Amino acid sequence: MTTAPDTTPEELDAVMERAAAAAPLLAALTPGERAGLLRAVADALDGAADELVPIAMEEAHYPEARCRGELGRTTFQLRLFAETLEEGSYLEAAVDPADPDWGTPRPDVRRLLVPLGPVVVFGASNFPFAFATAGGDSASALAAGCPVVVKAHPGHLRLARRTAEIVVAALDGVGAPEGGFALVEGVETGKRAVTHPLTRAVGFTGSIPGGRALFDLAVSRPDPIPFYGELGSVNPVFVTRAAAAARGDEILGGYADSATMGSGQFCTKPGVLFVPEETKLDALVADFGGRAAAPLLNERVSEGFVRGLDALSAHPATEVLVQGVRTGDDWTPSLLRTDLDSLLENAETLLEECFGPATLVVTYPDERRLLEAAGVFGGQLTVTVHGEEDDEIAPALLALGASLAGRVLWNSWPTGVAVTHAMTHGGPYPATTAPLHTSVGTTAVRRFLRPVTYQSVPQSLLPRELRDDNPLGVPRRVNGAAPSA
Amino acid sequence: MTTAPDTTPEELDAVMERAAAAAPLLAALTPGERAGLLRAVADALDGAADELVPIAMEEAHYPEARCRGELGRTTFQLRLFAETLEEGSYLEAAVDPADPDWGTPRPDVRRLLVPLGPVVVFGASNFPFAFATAGGDSASALAAGCPVVVKAHPGHLRLARRTAEIVVAALDGVGAPEGGFALVEGVETGKRAVTHPLTRAVGFTGSIPGGRALFDLAVSRPDPIPFYGELGSVNPVFVTRAAAAARGDEILGGYADSATMGSGQFCTKPGVLFVPEETKLDALVADFGGRAAAPLLNERVSEGFVRGLDALSAHPATEVLVQGVRTGDDWTPSLLRTDLDSLLENAETLLEECFGPATLVVTYPDERRLLEAAGVFGGQLTVTVHGEEDDEIAPALLALGASLAGRVLWNSWPTGVAVTHAMTHGGPYPATTAPLHTSVGTTAVRRFLRPVTYQSVPQSLLPRELRDDNPLGVPRRVNGAAPSA
Repeated sequence: MTTAPDTTPEELDAVMERAAAAAPLLAALTPGERAGLLRAVADALDGAADELVPIAMEEAHYPEARCRGELGRTTFQLRLFAETLEEGSYLEAAVDPADPDWGTPRPDVRRLLVPLGPVVVFGASNFPFAFATAGGDSASALAAGCPVVVKAHPGHLRLARRTAEIVVAALDGVGAPEGGFALVEGVETGKRAVTHPLTRAVGFTGSIPGGRALFDLAVSRPDPIPFYGELGSVNPVFVTRAAAAARGDEILGGYADSATMGSGQFCTKPGVLFVPEETKLDALVADFGGRAAAPLLNERVSEGFVRGLDALSAHPATEVLVQGVRTGDDWTPSLLRTDLDSLLENAETLLEECFGPATLVVTYPDERRLLEAAGVFGGQLTVTVHGEEDDEIAPALLALGASLAGRVLWNSWPTGVAVTHAMTHGGPYPATTAPLHTSVGTTAVRRFLRPVTYQSVPQSLLPRELRDDNPLGVPRRVNGAAPSA
Repeated sequence: MTTAPDTTPEELDAVMERAAAAAPLLAALTPGERAGLLRAVADALDGAADELVPIAMEEAHYPEARCRGELGRTTFQLRLFAETLEEGSYLEAAVDPADPDWGTPRPDVRRLLVPLGPVVVFGASNFPFAFATAGGDSASALAAGCPVVVKAHPGHLRLARRTAEIVVAALDGVGAPEGGFALVEGVETGKRAVTHPLTRAVGFTGSIPGGRALFDLAVSRPDPIPFYGELGSVNPVFVTRAAAAARGDEILGGYADSATMGSGQFCTKPGVLFVPEETKLDALVADFGGRAAAPLLNERVSEGFVRGLDALSAHPATEVLVQGVRTGDDWTPSLLRTDLDSLLENAETLLEECFGPATLVVTYPDERRLLEAAGVFGGQLTVTVHGEEDDEIAPALLALGASLAGRVLWNSWPTGVAVTHAMTHGGPYPATTAPLHTSVGTTAVRRFLRPVTYQSVPQSLLPRELRDDNPLGVPRRVNGAAPSA
């Protein structure tokens, strides 16, 4: 474990002041110029893979393939944001020329999204690359034109430091404004950063208690600021009776793979599986029982997992089908069972996220009663339905999914979040603290932008994106019509 | 003054339950069907103008032309949201087909915005139509597909009740889901509505203390919800030396008109005017001194205004140029003066919003020192610059405006907010509690929508807007390209 003194309050002040000084400079770059910064960071990280991957393996206890894959996802993400900047729709530019015949007095008004200012990012323990120092929050904030101050995750401190050095060097190398990216360390530093007067928004990925505590700080500031927390989710999976009858083994096999992937340390782990009561679970039990032991991320995650698993196992409404075994730092997965009535009665305890290799199977008698589950789940990142296309209940289950979650899946598994334009990694509280947004996918930049309207400003003084000659070729909504460049 | 018992907690529960029951039904309507609801409401309100306008005149003490104009703005707004629904871009629909060659595993993912659920709306005292019962927040929430529960403003209770009756009857008349619109009354009822478990978002227009208290309730819920508060703003106006030299009289005349409009009871009232120290203020003083007395909205507004004006007048750093006179309920406007150094030193007191007919002129010595003002203003709804196009300082002042406010104006006045696609009526705190959004203009619907992504869902089970055949003709972003239908 690397130890070093935490960032002092004075050092944090200096970091935030440099970030605030960089803010107007970053904002003044064209989107295309900022795309160049993101690509420089991506290239530098790819170039340092052989150095970074071993540190990640050591600190996060993941196998090499996982670490290489995650680094690839991270740099892919940076390059995809670069493309988003070049395409330009993300600016939501709109031009309404003056119109004397409009229903209200209408001068010339033109709208554009502008960066919020310095963003503080708290990375996740379970994704040392993709949701950490140079991960999705940092990438989308930089893409938006916001300086980024990362609070290093203590679970991978050496990786955070080395990653930050590489990012800063890459940005310097292409002439980015000084102070646009920095790393700070320490729990108290994190709190101070959230309440720092110069901070304009916060991105966070982590636990419900940790995230809520920081959210509370952000909203109780003299000037509350947006707090984008991705907190917790149990990601229910509903298997209809027809689907279970048609391909129960295949579904249970897929479930075991998804639920135990990465030792169950995914925020999208399918933590609760609803199956008809007649479903034979022997094969699933054998599958879980035969899985190899694997380490958890760190001691803190282990402690939380033991608490959660103990609470679930000791609960009178659950039956332990497979008792996971700990050997040193390694765990084999656990599988528990309850029935629908017990779940509905004990939802608060049984539906608490158990981060790690343990999941709960819920057997149901009457398929229509699955809809009662809507009443006991909080907001979710994902809801999955395994069904047949002509299942009578399928539309209602998908609608239930959309009412609870940011992503609804059909006959597939929630682990693995595609980085695309149409992705949503978000949902109502407690899945996130900001249900209007996503932390994965190109629309994640929207979190760090706010609209500004220019009224009757002459051409020579307008931002380039809003001038009549549109020199940057930005897609714009003119008079409310669908955007064109 | 109409008096009636407040909505009881049991009645509020029933209202919220009906709203929650209406939510999926409203959401299931096509955007075009919801457009029909909005138009029915607009038609009914226009048809009731001769009944509603006299009530508004009596309760808000506004002249008839103002009330008729504001009602027209209100129904125009409803119809513009109807057009927005039919056009469909507001859904931000996106389709990313499966792609084996993508940088991350990429199944078929499709994204759509869906309504949040029941929205509680607190209207403003100063706009009994356009920012009240059937005003912008209600219209945009209904457009989004969210049931609306309005907390009646005590300043125009009879108008609120009659408006709500007309809205409900109009919705019933076209077969809208029962419970989709309701009115509740009472201060405690308002607080209960913000913390009610079924409430999914809040829209508010009013004072900083009132709005902040409700914001605090919304974010300290077990499940925090979005709170869209439009609070306060002093809307600074910067007049450059060259502009003052070229057309000082015209600018000061325009300022007097804008600052005293509606007895200064606009959230966009230009409350602080920066002019060069050599500016002759005699004409402005004569103008303010010659203006007719006019009533304020109600006793509560009067009391707040007297407190604010007294604090400004009594402050050692200000000079009273025109002392407003109260006759019964009527006030003539007040004009005060200070200099830039005094403003910078006493910003907290001198820049507090004084809602009503009083404004502050700030004289400056060196034009470049105007940029220091950026450090003392909180977030603003508007910043205005009066300058010459070749003013050296113009770009910096406009940039300062964009850093502080949601709307930046050039050689014009902030009162009067055009209802268009490109409008932003918003800004950083304390102008609003949600800097990413606007409460005026068609993008105001975005506040009440959240994204949901459908992954690998078959055509027959997808929402219409996301099916390959796109039966509703919704503009969609396919593979990240600019939207097309």
